[in-house]
Amino acid sequence: MPSANTTAIKPLPRILLDGHGGDGAPDVVLDALQQTLASPLPKAKFGVCGLVEIIEPALKARGLDGLVEIVPATEVIDMCDAPALAVRKKKQSSMHVSARAVRDGDWDAFVSAGNTGALMAVSKLILKTLPGIDRPAIASHIPAVDGGTFFLDIGANAECSSENLVQFAVMGSCYLQAAEGMKSPRVGLLNIGTEEGKGTDVIKMAAARLKDSELNYIGFVEGTDLFSDSVDVVVCDGFIGNVSLKTMEGLAKFMLSTIKQELTSSVVAKTGALLAKGALKRVKNNMNPSEHNGAPLLGLNGIVVKSHGGADAYAYACAIQVARREVEANLIERTIQSMNVLAEANT
Amino acid sequence: MPSANTTAIKPLPRILLDGHGGDGAPDVVLDALQQTLASPLPKAKFGVCGLVEIIEPALKARGLDGLVEIVPATEVIDMCDAPALAVRKKKQSSMHVSARAVRDGDWDAFVSAGNTGALMAVSKLILKTLPGIDRPAIASHIPAVDGGTFFLDIGANAECSSENLVQFAVMGSCYLQAAEGMKSPRVGLLNIGTEEGKGTDVIKMAAARLKDSELNYIGFVEGTDLFSDSVDVVVCDGFIGNVSLKTMEGLAKFMLSTIKQELTSSVVAKTGALLAKGALKRVKNNMNPSEHNGAPLLGLNGIVVKSHGGADAYAYACAIQVARREVEANLIERTIQSMNVLAEANT
Repeated sequence: MPSANTTAIKPLPRILLDGHGGDGAPDVVLDALQQTLASPLPKAKFGVCGLVEIIEPALKARGLDGLVEIVPATEVIDMCDAPALAVRKKKQSSMHVSARAVRDGDWDAFVSAGNTGALMAVSKLILKTLPGIDRPAIASHIPAVDGGTFFLDIGANAECSSENLVQFAVMGSCYLQAAEGMKSPRVGLLNIGTEEGKGTDVIKMAAARLKDSELNYIGFVEGTDLFSDSVDVVVCDGFIGNVSLKTMEGLAKFMLSTIKQELTSSVVAKTGALLAKGALKRVKNNMNPSEHNGAPLLGLNGIVVKSHGGADAYAYACAIQVARREVEANLIERTIQSMNVLAEANT
Repeated sequence: MPSANTTAIKPLPRILLDGHGGDGAPDVVLDALQQTLASPLPKAKFGVCGLVEIIEPALKARGLDGLVEIVPATEVIDMCDAPALAVRKKKQSSMHVSARAVRDGDWDAFVSAGNTGALMAVSKLILKTLPGIDRPAIASHIPAVDGGTFFLDIGANAECSSENLVQFAVMGSCYLQAAEGMKSPRVGLLNIGTEEGKGTDVIKMAAARLKDSELNYIGFVEGTDLFSDSVDVVVCDGFIGNVSLKTMEGLAKFMLSTIKQELTSSVVAKTGALLAKGALKRVKNNMNPSEHNGAPLLGLNGIVVKSHGGADAYAYACAIQVARREVEANLIERTIQSMNVLAEANT
């Protein structure tokens, strides 16, 4: 039995935060950092990347100077920048500098609430994809019965080949194994029916490939299954994923506003609502995207997590935890191994 | 001014109901018919198509014999029949007989709660599509702020050309003009962003064609817009429509079950829920797909309305009203005219 002295001490995950991008940057980012440092969550080493003249006084104002490293950048990518142009023209942006810092091994992961298209493009350009992976994908947690489902691609790739979908399945499965300790995540392909023969040729070919893979592939699933406990990873192209996710966003908002309106429609209803306040708040929280903030960019040779642009400090702190879990669980190495297994099955 | 005597009396819409198909047929169908006949809604002439030995006694039991015509059929298409096979093998099914009755002008419309795939295939085979329309589509009302949106295709065509999407736009626009008296429905193309240049080539080409059309085309819309008051007709291919609709179904069910669970979690919450019962019931009703039952099959040379297979009598009665409104508003003639305008714009 090894003594405590001989056990290798695992180094702290080193997480760099993009100090710009998102509606409330840099305040939201630094408030989230302050919350994280004060919380009893597992420790990590943190840095903030951005314009020193903005980041430094903001850190000082929070008493965080000295506790957090500043990684200087001289440009900022705005929400209105065209991703393709921003990638080429703003090479000293906080996104570029952060991605290079991860690529060069100075940091283990970076989190950004900036322009999603630019973040994906910069990350792909600088970090490259893992061996065997043609395109990265963005994933999201869907709140549901029994822990929810992990859904990808939610918007990085409008059109996908069957091979892309198979790779997304590997990426999603590895994520749940790594970040949530799941042994054998059940993988489903999103389709318009569960019977064989349904759907497009691309989906049918992806299904045939997944059946022969080492993954725990359970077959076709439908939109309703995103909220069921019968599947863990739901795979589709980025067009369908994006529409589906935005449909959820629209419906949840509509339902909650209807509830609010009805519950204030009479004195009796208002009294009832007051008594049921705690319960109704829990419903709202359960539907709250903040709880599930932190969309991993998967398939890259480096860990990148996207925070919602409108995230508050609490939500941003959730995204930081997603990055920490990915680092601690060696997501990159696991994905490389799984892609090797897939490549061997193909030969 | 014409006297009352010289005004042409509009004949009653003649609506045929498929007595089979759906979970509770024929009881649900006949109960819905009974409710409709007893209601103060505009009158229509009704028939029921199906196996006489089943339909006749069921009508008698409700005191409806003599009030409703029976159109005999000798076969029934089940939910488990493969659509392609059922279309070819069960030519005397209630669906086939109903479609032929509409084609031959004996009835103005038919409503069925049967197998959607079979209903679409039978209707297309027997009624054919309207001039200029390559493929029919299925549409659905989405409950939302300010009356909701009209959404198509929700599952008839897994893959679509840009030309198909343009035709769906015409069909949806005509439907809202006819059935809801809307002057100039705002048409949007469902996409993964509203900026020009977003989406697939198919969508970009459809957008270019719609800009040049007579339709009130407002551009790209996103999944969230299905619940907004900024668009009336939302057009997409049947794969995306189906996934989006089933995502809504799953989320609504999940949210309502979460609400129920939370509101029964403590005595205080239960008391609150009791007081707010009326308000909460209205929320549920507002989300209730029954209120929006009756999905028109559009683009056919004849009026066909699909009722949800699990519809109760109230919901089925809503589908009957969709058929009645389509007949009264001359949907077929309006669609032919609009397709002519589109064809002229193309030449």
